[in-house]
Amino acid sequence: MSNILIRGGTVVNADQAFQADVLTQDGKIIAVGPNLQAPAGATVVDAGGQYVMPGGIDPHTHMQLPFMGTTTMDDFYTGTAASLAGGTTSIIDFVIPNPQQPLMEAYQTWRGWAEKSAADYGFHVAITWWDESVKRDMGTLVQQEGVNSFKHFMAYKNAIMCDDETLVNSFKRALELGAMPTVHAENGELVYLLQQEVAKRGITGPEGHPLSRPPTVEGEAANRAIAIAEVLNVPIYVVHVSCIESAEAIARARARGQRVYGEVLAGHLTVDDSVYRHPDFAIAAAHVMSPPFRPKAHQEALWRGLQSGSLHTTATDHCTFCAAQKAAGKDNFAKIPNGCGGVEERMAVVWDEGVNTGRLTPSEFVAVTSANTAKLFNLYPNKGSVSVGADADIVVWDPAGTKTLSAKTQFSKGDYNIFEGRTVTGIPSHTLSQGKLVFVQGDLRAERGVGRYVKRPAFNANFTASKLRADVMAVGAVKR
Amino acid sequence: MSNILIRGGTVVNADQAFQADVLTQDGKIIAVGPNLQAPAGATVVDAGGQYVMPGGIDPHTHMQLPFMGTTTMDDFYTGTAASLAGGTTSIIDFVIPNPQQPLMEAYQTWRGWAEKSAADYGFHVAITWWDESVKRDMGTLVQQEGVNSFKHFMAYKNAIMCDDETLVNSFKRALELGAMPTVHAENGELVYLLQQEVAKRGITGPEGHPLSRPPTVEGEAANRAIAIAEVLNVPIYVVHVSCIESAEAIARARARGQRVYGEVLAGHLTVDDSVYRHPDFAIAAAHVMSPPFRPKAHQEALWRGLQSGSLHTTATDHCTFCAAQKAAGKDNFAKIPNGCGGVEERMAVVWDEGVNTGRLTPSEFVAVTSANTAKLFNLYPNKGSVSVGADADIVVWDPAGTKTLSAKTQFSKGDYNIFEGRTVTGIPSHTLSQGKLVFVQGDLRAERGVGRYVKRPAFNANFTASKLRADVMAVGAVKR
Amino acid sequence: MSNILIRGGTVVNADQAFQADVLTQDGKIIAVGPNLQAPAGATVVDAGGQYVMPGGIDPHTHMQLPFMGTTTMDDFYTGTAASLAGGTTSIIDFVIPNPQQPLMEAYQTWRGWAEKSAADYGFHVAITWWDESVKRDMGTLVQQEGVNSFKHFMAYKNAIMCDDETLVNSFKRALELGAMPTVHAENGELVYLLQQEVAKRGITGPEGHPLSRPPTVEGEAANRAIAIAEVLNVPIYVVHVSCIESAEAIARARARGQRVYGEVLAGHLTVDDSVYRHPDFAIAAAHVMSPPFRPKAHQEALWRGLQSGSLHTTATDHCTFCAAQKAAGKDNFAKIPNGCGGVEERMAVVWDEGVNTGRLTPSEFVAVTSANTAKLFNLYPNKGSVSVGADADIVVWDPAGTKTLSAKTQFSKGDYNIFEGRTVTGIPSHTLSQGKLVFVQGDLRAERGVGRYVKRPAFNANFTASKLRADVMAVGAVKR
Amino acid sequence: MSNILIRGGTVVNADQAFQADVLTQDGKIIAVGPNLQAPAGATVVDAGGQYVMPGGIDPHTHMQLPFMGTTTMDDFYTGTAASLAGGTTSIIDFVIPNPQQPLMEAYQTWRGWAEKSAADYGFHVAITWWDESVKRDMGTLVQQEGVNSFKHFMAYKNAIMCDDETLVNSFKRALELGAMPTVHAENGELVYLLQQEVAKRGITGPEGHPLSRPPTVEGEAANRAIAIAEVLNVPIYVVHVSCIESAEAIARARARGQRVYGEVLAGHLTVDDSVYRHPDFAIAAAHVMSPPFRPKAHQEALWRGLQSGSLHTTATDHCTFCAAQKAAGKDNFAKIPNGCGGVEERMAVVWDEGVNTGRLTPSEFVAVTSANTAKLFNLYPNKGSVSVGADADIVVWDPAGTKTLSAKTQFSKGDYNIFEGRTVTGIPSHTLSQGKLVFVQGDLRAERGVGRYVKRPAFNANFTASKLRADVMAVGAVKR
Ligand SMILES: [Zn+2]
Ligand SMILES: [Zn+2]
Ligand SMILES: [Zn+2]
Ligand SMILES: [Zn+2]
Ligand SMILES: [Zn+2]
Ligand SMILES: [Zn+2]
Ligand SMILES: [Zn+2]
Ligand SMILES: [Zn+2]
Repeated sequence: MSNILIRGGTVVNADQAFQADVLTQDGKIIAVGPNLQAPAGATVVDAGGQYVMPGGIDPHTHMQLPFMGTTTMDDFYTGTAASLAGGTTSIIDFVIPNPQQPLMEAYQTWRGWAEKSAADYGFHVAITWWDESVKRDMGTLVQQEGVNSFKHFMAYKNAIMCDDETLVNSFKRALELGAMPTVHAENGELVYLLQQEVAKRGITGPEGHPLSRPPTVEGEAANRAIAIAEVLNVPIYVVHVSCIESAEAIARARARGQRVYGEVLAGHLTVDDSVYRHPDFAIAAAHVMSPPFRPKAHQEALWRGLQSGSLHTTATDHCTFCAAQKAAGKDNFAKIPNGCGGVEERMAVVWDEGVNTGRLTPSEFVAVTSANTAKLFNLYPNKGSVSVGADADIVVWDPAGTKTLSAKTQFSKGDYNIFEGRTVTGIPSHTLSQGKLVFVQGDLRAERGVGRYVKRPAFNANFTASKLRADVMAVGAVKR
Repeated sequence: MSNILIRGGTVVNADQAFQADVLTQDGKIIAVGPNLQAPAGATVVDAGGQYVMPGGIDPHTHMQLPFMGTTTMDDFYTGTAASLAGGTTSIIDFVIPNPQQPLMEAYQTWRGWAEKSAADYGFHVAITWWDESVKRDMGTLVQQEGVNSFKHFMAYKNAIMCDDETLVNSFKRALELGAMPTVHAENGELVYLLQQEVAKRGITGPEGHPLSRPPTVEGEAANRAIAIAEVLNVPIYVVHVSCIESAEAIARARARGQRVYGEVLAGHLTVDDSVYRHPDFAIAAAHVMSPPFRPKAHQEALWRGLQSGSLHTTATDHCTFCAAQKAAGKDNFAKIPNGCGGVEERMAVVWDEGVNTGRLTPSEFVAVTSANTAKLFNLYPNKGSVSVGADADIVVWDPAGTKTLSAKTQFSKGDYNIFEGRTVTGIPSHTLSQGKLVFVQGDLRAERGVGRYVKRPAFNANFTASKLRADVMAVGAVKR
Repeated sequence: MSNILIRGGTVVNADQAFQADVLTQDGKIIAVGPNLQAPAGATVVDAGGQYVMPGGIDPHTHMQLPFMGTTTMDDFYTGTAASLAGGTTSIIDFVIPNPQQPLMEAYQTWRGWAEKSAADYGFHVAITWWDESVKRDMGTLVQQEGVNSFKHFMAYKNAIMCDDETLVNSFKRALELGAMPTVHAENGELVYLLQQEVAKRGITGPEGHPLSRPPTVEGEAANRAIAIAEVLNVPIYVVHVSCIESAEAIARARARGQRVYGEVLAGHLTVDDSVYRHPDFAIAAAHVMSPPFRPKAHQEALWRGLQSGSLHTTATDHCTFCAAQKAAGKDNFAKIPNGCGGVEERMAVVWDEGVNTGRLTPSEFVAVTSANTAKLFNLYPNKGSVSVGADADIVVWDPAGTKTLSAKTQFSKGDYNIFEGRTVTGIPSHTLSQGKLVFVQGDLRAERGVGRYVKRPAFNANFTASKLRADVMAVGAVKR
Repeated sequence: MSNILIRGGTVVNADQAFQADVLTQDGKIIAVGPNLQAPAGATVVDAGGQYVMPGGIDPHTHMQLPFMGTTTMDDFYTGTAASLAGGTTSIIDFVIPNPQQPLMEAYQTWRGWAEKSAADYGFHVAITWWDESVKRDMGTLVQQEGVNSFKHFMAYKNAIMCDDETLVNSFKRALELGAMPTVHAENGELVYLLQQEVAKRGITGPEGHPLSRPPTVEGEAANRAIAIAEVLNVPIYVVHVSCIESAEAIARARARGQRVYGEVLAGHLTVDDSVYRHPDFAIAAAHVMSPPFRPKAHQEALWRGLQSGSLHTTATDHCTFCAAQKAAGKDNFAKIPNGCGGVEERMAVVWDEGVNTGRLTPSEFVAVTSANTAKLFNLYPNKGSVSVGADADIVVWDPAGTKTLSAKTQFSKGDYNIFEGRTVTGIPSHTLSQGKLVFVQGDLRAERGVGRYVKRPAFNANFTASKLRADVMAVGAVKR
């Protein structure tokens, strides 16, 4: 029997903050209340002056992603270890089958890779092509494997891009299964055109990347995916909303009563597009990801979306390539591997720019870094809350602690840090995963392979309500 | 020691729904979990197939309101008894001083009247005039009396209407005190003009009422109050949002990052303005309240606001006048006493039109009928949640139960029911207040005088965040 | 030398209205002013109490459209004769090549059919497929044939639907040529899906038609086409905007500074979707056109768009099929030939519902029925204005004249009138085409074959400004 | 008989641009067409490669404004002379009665001052107080003096500020008279508060000016004035729209079908708020005007409003105080006389930033600098168009000409130029006023006292349409 008593802190959940001690046992929270007694042998963590919050959940990572004969720098072990150092105790990664590859085969491959994880994890599965086997495998994944979300890329023409027909087929199937469709929203046809047009203007460097993927391209795709979901009466989740245009597409749909959800990356909240014009190719290229970083006005809009409730979760799209890998696009920005890190820094960056600036209350911070993701993907309240019965995935947060973020000191294996040099106030002092102290004041104690695959049940409450609404609104045939 | 065990139901909180029993003792919830044991002597309530939810909170009632030498039909006892019959276990009523009347005097008067309440209650205090004593008394009310919200009428010219100067003074004071300013948003100058213009067109009946208070008049005032709050960096709460125009003013402000909250009445969600053209004066007049009922398109917008999170609470503005009282405006709609009932029907009407139609999930229902009000006015989690340590104010909800609403069968003392004849599916089977069964399957056991005045602390988290934001955004002087 | 003197009327142009006589000679207006003298032999039209306006231009008709081995009821003669009876003196029809058919071949075919026209006409040419020959022929059409607009169908999957790739290719080519891309905006993939879904619900009658083409489907496509145009910096014109969703997509783009234009049909302004539930199949089917008629709230939005300037032109999509032709879809609404009439009624219906209700001033009426189309498609001021030097295409409008619209009395060859039974106030008393009286107080004097093909030059001012804007906004490469 | 022939240019009107010569005689345009013959003795102006446009109309100037015992630097002669040098041939200035001063007395005073004008002029009359005499004098002004617009200040508390009651009274009277109400939209109560709050924070310099008048303050007032106009069914014109908030209030109203018009100043389009933080007090203070200059994002929004048609006119609020006068607020920004120049530079600045950047076509330039003002205030087509019969107020515009704007070289009497150092491309080569060459390639030939007071008739077409609309929408009494 292993106990940890977190004493003297302020528990922050998405719905409230209050003074309380927290006691864990064998991986679960067993008590939350004032003046708890430490059982014999319990480890006591002094949380005086600190916040005790549910561990972060990053709903968007790509660990160990195979790409062009190589893989991203962070595998499931190093990536989840880095996440624990940053206070994030769960990730949801992506299974991305090649077109024509059986879904179950890809799924098993990723499950194998993920066995080395140090933290709990789940998978969204991407739909990159369509036939009857895909439809059948979606059912297997939901009903037997605890997958309750499917991803669709609207960009990457001639590769993994879904056309409208596949979107329609897959969304319809997801609705039947009670699984959430999610989209990477960029109009791939326009990206393809613009990559050529930008190149014709003699622009080959990373500064061409944002020019080939302007906000309009993202806004259009978000609006389209939402329209398809509306017609089908299925909830939808838009990943990495980076700009005003797509945030407004979501807000418009929500104002019409549609159940639409938006995710924002820590990078998009805090880094602007001036990075692409950095004179050093390596630095500029290190920021190449899609959607790209945007002019500053977009950042403010994203923060406002999180605060007002039209955007819901924060993530990172953690996908680290090193300088040598990025150099593949030395002469052609379109060939720079897309991806940036962040899983380790997300919590601190969102706290520093969100809570310290008054954009978010501490409870709103918990909502957007943990609880909302848990609710949307049916992990709640095991994940996403500090409450009796929940998993003991907890971060003790020191609001006065400071740290200067840097590639030199990060645990992540990437050789670049998009938050390089930024000093944040508010950092984890302790992280608990499965009731164990895995990070203690700078000391990372992550263990390879202890992370568990988490099954996520289908049919959250949104699906029931959407179905009812559709039935109520249905109109019948005219008798003639 | 008194125990009640609610067995076999589905607990619904704002953040989740789950199978669990609920055990209360001496007015508090002491356990929530599967298969709880009934202590000796405990009363057991069978909640099989039912929902166990936090009792409703109605943040907007006027019990025993003095008016024109008479008072509303329902006093604090009959009104709160009726509310318990409907599953609402707390109300927040209004202290409304006459202009020039000391605030504390009015407050004490209302406190006296309320002593006969059967359910717990609090008070918003209206600011109807301004001088140094008002400013001082606001401090006393917040710091000693547990009042954390102040009401401002932007209508009722030549009576209790606040002009912009008073709004500015009062909002500024509320900010210092950490208390929420709230507004009845209608431009009183325009109402005054339109009452005359409508009369000039020969319209004297109740159908003139909505013509004298069109949506523009409400939208303008909401927008103005929100602008004043924005300039002062104070959160704001708009009562009885009845139309698209004010709902959009709130949504716009929220999209700008402002902390603005909106309340909707059960009546505005479900009754339309055709009632004012009813050929029977008594029926038309029975619906005269401000803002008036609106054309149907507005209802849909209000529902969407609740679902998307741009509107937050539901209330009733319960304020019952009988036909004889309404007849005071027989020849002039402007003299018809404004007010309708609803405290007894709100929960059932919102469930029937909200949950049964798929507009709201059960958790969203709890949010908008109880938890959001509790959070905004710092009653949470004692009120607004079914959780260990909370007040045992609980409604056991039978989703299959039906009832036809009618003045003939209501507990409220009014002689009219704006939901007359409407059959709802989803009604309370049991209501617990302070851990006692006060309503059991149609049998109302409300007790006069047992309701408690509830102090509400100031400075909820919105105030801290707003202050931080203002500090971060502040610009200093130029050195010259 | 032939002269007509229109005496005593009020000339109404898009920019002003003023008392003046109008004198024409040999097909041109040669004087506009007070107290003009009638040349010897001149015909004098008494316009006392009447308005003298530029003849209407209908920018969207389908005369003699081949369909399923048959053709629409109205050919270019009967259709243009009917238009003259209604005060419309020019049409722009559509050349619609079959996929794979050479553009020039289709163009010549339509030119041949149109030789029998009684009024002046031009052609938009549809791009229904793509290869190098299409690209080349677009150049020929613009530079030699006076075509300055190309049409794209985003619906009609497996037939003439353009995918995004073709839209991109064609819009890009149009930009080079200074020709306006136009779109029929409905997401063909969603229509295809919904036709099947509606059928699965057992709905086979015309009431299934609007269910398979809801406003979302139109709004999505409009938004997408506008996004493509934005990325390419090309102006765009959306035909038959029928709903709030697409009107808002246009308004949003215009608010961003984009040069986007919208057309509205007389039918969409005045007829609602209740027609599809008519118990008589023939009547319901007679209204089947795409986009379908919409619930009433959409009509008001369209009127507001015209008045505020976010929508620009009115048209009819005149495309008449008789009951026997419509019967092809007796058992499947998806097989009912799409199309309704209106070329004869548009001016009177827009006047009656627009000017008589105060939605439009007389000058705004001229703008949306004639001048704006002339400006957008480079026909102005020869068409679209009553001014010296302009074509003598004039309608003398009797604001007090009334008429009951009916298939029984119409000149158009269709056997149905979507405005059946509507009595309008405000009708043409005289129509002049090419300086000849072709309609005089009910007496239609249209002549077969006298209508002229009108060449429309490319590169209107929008193109120059858009090009400048793109150049100013362009960002260059980073020197590394 | 005096003739001028402008040969070889491109005539640009709001509706079209075309090659034509222009011939004037005795102050009027008598011919517009190709290859006009010069009458004997005619002066010929070579306009080859140039644009021939209607002279600018500045609808917002304050010449010779009395203030604190002194007056603005420019009187009606020097101000209008400067305007002619810039291509502006008419102004509409303001009569501003002191509260309690009879309107007719103030009007006569201003008429007297204006007799020295070099260009044609009219007056808006401000309503700064209310009683029956004001109501009566409004009638006299409209019916006998040709005033068709009244101005209302919503700011300047304790001075000329109108409260809502006065706005309602005056708008209602304006509606009866067919005269346009206009508003300076800033919430005076909030400005008053913020001036004190800013001072409390120790900010006394000009940088406090924009802090005391943030965009919210303007947006609120614009929204309120528009709401009042909507309720009364009267058209409304908002002067000097400077920010997104008020531009959106206008756009929202227009989208609802309301006849609302917005004016933008050349300064607000091109100068940002960084000027207030200039280390030199004199320079910072020279920019103090209300509303203040705004952050750059607002500028782009204003341009987009002009281009899309939700904003309509450009003006300057020309009101020049010299450094000595501005020094009155050395220790208190609230005492710096508000006002900046611009009447001389407006046309060039709007052309350079508008047309040269592709934001506006040349015809759109004419619309927003001249024709729209002429239409809204019933001066059209005498002013605002190059057409036969119009006043020969013409500017010949050299699109290749350049000039560096500077206080050193300006004709205006101010000692500061808010466009100082800006080099514009596109300047007047010749200005004609009343058919005389008053500015020829840098040589100003303005004559004192030749400017004429221009009467403007009431009831433009907007009023008729608004009245009709109100009648159609009116609802009657219920018979009981
Ligand atoms: Zn992605
Ligand atoms: Zn990703
Ligand atoms: Zn109220
Ligand atoms: Zn109330
Ligand atoms: Zn079409
Ligand atoms: Zn068509
Ligand atoms: Zn002003
Ligand atoms: Zn001014």
